[in-house]
Amino acid sequence: MANIEFFFDFSSPYSYLASTQIASVAARAGATFEARPFVLGAVLKGSGNTMPAAVPAKALQMLRDLGAWARLYGVPFVFNGRFPLNAMKAHRLVLAVDDRALRWRVTQRIFRAFWAEDADIADEAVLRSLLSECGADVSAAFETYESPAVKDALRANTDEAIARGAFGAPTFFVGDEMFVGNDRLNFVERAARGERIYGEG
Amino acid sequence: MANIEFFFDFSSPYSYLASTQIASVAARAGATFEARPFVLGAVLKGSGNTMPAAVPAKALQMLRDLGAWARLYGVPFVFNGRFPLNAMKAHRLVLAVDDRALRWRVTQRIFRAFWAEDADIADEAVLRSLLSECGADVSAAFETYESPAVKDALRANTDEAIARGAFGAPTFFVGDEMFVGNDRLNFVERAARGERIYGEG
Repeated sequence: MANIEFFFDFSSPYSYLASTQIASVAARAGATFEARPFVLGAVLKGSGNTMPAAVPAKALQMLRDLGAWARLYGVPFVFNGRFPLNAMKAHRLVLAVDDRALRWRVTQRIFRAFWAEDADIADEAVLRSLLSECGADVSAAFETYESPAVKDALRANTDEAIARGAFGAPTFFVGDEMFVGNDRLNFVERAARGERIYGEG
Repeated sequence: MANIEFFFDFSSPYSYLASTQIASVAARAGATFEARPFVLGAVLKGSGNTMPAAVPAKALQMLRDLGAWARLYGVPFVFNGRFPLNAMKAHRLVLAVDDRALRWRVTQRIFRAFWAEDADIADEAVLRSLLSECGADVSAAFETYESPAVKDALRANTDEAIARGAFGAPTFFVGDEMFVGNDRLNFVERAARGERIYGEG
């Protein structure tokens, strides 16, 4: 059974869009998926890339395009004025949640808060309330989320993604094939069905 | 009836891919289309953008991705080692061909020569032979292609595209809606059927 690795940063709007689809994509392909936070700023720096939104004409088009994808997917979307936000705390928090299913619920909840409810996910009180909503042990998560182990896990995700060729978000891997962007989910799905998309392997 | 404006630069591989599909996209939508060369270098400069291929990790992924789209479309593709090539002559030549149907045949022929046959489309002899293959009046085209009128027409296409928000290639317009990239042809087709994709109009 194929496994889809979904590398995301909460501050990336196309990562949010992909997060609303990845479970269906995996289910249709009969595959599993694993959501892995990474630090987009470090990925951009590590690859010598810049944010698309750094080019004004591109930023304008991105705003239009995000809305169109949200309508296509039938999901709520409000561009968060805090973008680009340092989502470090939120990334560490999801890594501090041990249970895999719960971690995914928390991930989806934080994405929705930031990209559909205009929430400030750098605010600890906001994060506490989102975790609590998901039924997570809030105290336990906040006790460990700034531990060296959790910090290292986030850094390791980031370094691994860069080493495997990542230069933006969202980035997907199916085995050794990498796919970049919400608009490559069609390729991700075919790869998860066992098709080679980019290489002869 | 909707009209799809397809702004392209011969040196853009995603423009080539889109050029192999645009006629079918328009036909399925019951729309017309118009292929308009522009100067990508000027569009990038005018919008403050850079080539995707300027970031090494992105360039690598682009190479893989182009091949995958070519296989998806069932069209030949060989990455031309002359990339990024100054395609000024070829752009002017197609604008020097008056007949619209013939101009489109020449456009497709030059795209194929550059992106499937590894030809040097900056070479006049190559261009002459391609024009001739299409049944164009080679002498007439070469007599006018460096005239002020043709040079102005190319510059006007470029300036107009920048003014309308373009920052890369290919760029499509359906009425006042702009779409960027081969991977937005699905949006182009829906817009050509009369749907609003990006705005309320």
